[in-house]
Amino acid sequence: MSSEVGTEALTRRGLMLVLSSPSGAGKTTISRALLKEEDNLVMSVSATTRPRRPGEEDGKDYFFVEPVDFNLMINRDELLEHAKVFNHYYGTPRAPVETALSEGRDILFDIDWQGTQQLAQKAGDDLVSIFILPPSTAALEKRLKTRAQDSAEVIAQRMSKASEEISHWREYDYVVVNEDVDHCLAEVKAILKAERLRTRRRAGLIDFVNRLREGY
Amino acid sequence: MSSEVGTEALTRRGLMLVLSSPSGAGKTTISRALLKEEDNLVMSVSATTRPRRPGEEDGKDYFFVEPVDFNLMINRDELLEHAKVFNHYYGTPRAPVETALSEGRDILFDIDWQGTQQLAQKAGDDLVSIFILPPSTAALEKRLKTRAQDSAEVIAQRMSKASEEISHWREYDYVVVNEDVDHCLAEVKAILKAERLRTRRRAGLIDFVNRLREGY
Repeated sequence: MSSEVGTEALTRRGLMLVLSSPSGAGKTTISRALLKEEDNLVMSVSATTRPRRPGEEDGKDYFFVEPVDFNLMINRDELLEHAKVFNHYYGTPRAPVETALSEGRDILFDIDWQGTQQLAQKAGDDLVSIFILPPSTAALEKRLKTRAQDSAEVIAQRMSKASEEISHWREYDYVVVNEDVDHCLAEVKAILKAERLRTRRRAGLIDFVNRLREGY
Repeated sequence: MSSEVGTEALTRRGLMLVLSSPSGAGKTTISRALLKEEDNLVMSVSATTRPRRPGEEDGKDYFFVEPVDFNLMINRDELLEHAKVFNHYYGTPRAPVETALSEGRDILFDIDWQGTQQLAQKAGDDLVSIFILPPSTAALEKRLKTRAQDSAEVIAQRMSKASEEISHWREYDYVVVNEDVDHCLAEVKAILKAERLRTRRRAGLIDFVNRLREGY
């Protein structure tokens, strides 16, 4: 008796890929390239209490909710992580993430070390976290300066926040140094490829192996 | 102040890569290709009590030791794993592995599920284990039959041993299905690339990050 590997054998649980880095280390470039090149990876959609801006789509850019509903979501433990930024709340709703994971789809999260810590507590084995380091402070400062016409004070604030973010690099599963975007992207893609092959995510192989063993 | 990433920043602890599979699933082909294409990966050299054959080199093919010395190695806990096969002992000496790991070199192990279990107990976080599944029993049987002019009985014995080996696939960190050698090799290489980027192996980055933070 022969058992060929079928599509269902490749069924697996999705994973949550977290990319964190100090502002200016090239994370946005890496995220965009990753989403473009990886078929089975989508960006996580956050819930927020901030007003919708022109051109933004509810359910695509954000889930726009009223503060009272956001509070209810917190109390019902319906958020995987949340934070307050400049008087507005942002958070990750649990339900769409759980649906995606159980359907074998991977989700990308662009969050900081605090969000990652919260997510790690609730997501456990589903989480794969990568910290992106800049190759030098000079490179970081240059990127922050060329990015916009911000004041020296604003740049100094960003540098201070970047330093705090970097201090948490050892809490991540993987660390990559973004000296070259293509090289760094290849490293992130290898991590994603490898983590998709983790035995514990590949419940779909159980039936395949059982049929394989019947063939002996 | 600027801190460029230097060579020493890339210093990391090596890892132990275990490949296991039932006989005939293509493991030897994958191992050879991997050793050829990966600069920083060497095959583990086992100690054995079996007599040296013509052309074999001590310290390269095996460490050839007397039975009494092999027993001493067991008693002194100098072996990471060992097994008896057809009246001869085989085992993995701990010292050369520890030297290689601390120098940042990776080591490949071609061992079965029992050796892997022993290794896992002693190596802990240094171990990365991959199980290679055949795409079908038909493919496996074909490979075992074409390999040599063995009797039906010998082939049946090998198939039985293969079935037992396969039953342990879920104890491994990763699982790959060898439907196509190039595809399977690419998956194993991605796993190796990713595991080299694990934060816990990259102690060499600590100084780099400290210099980076001083630059803020």
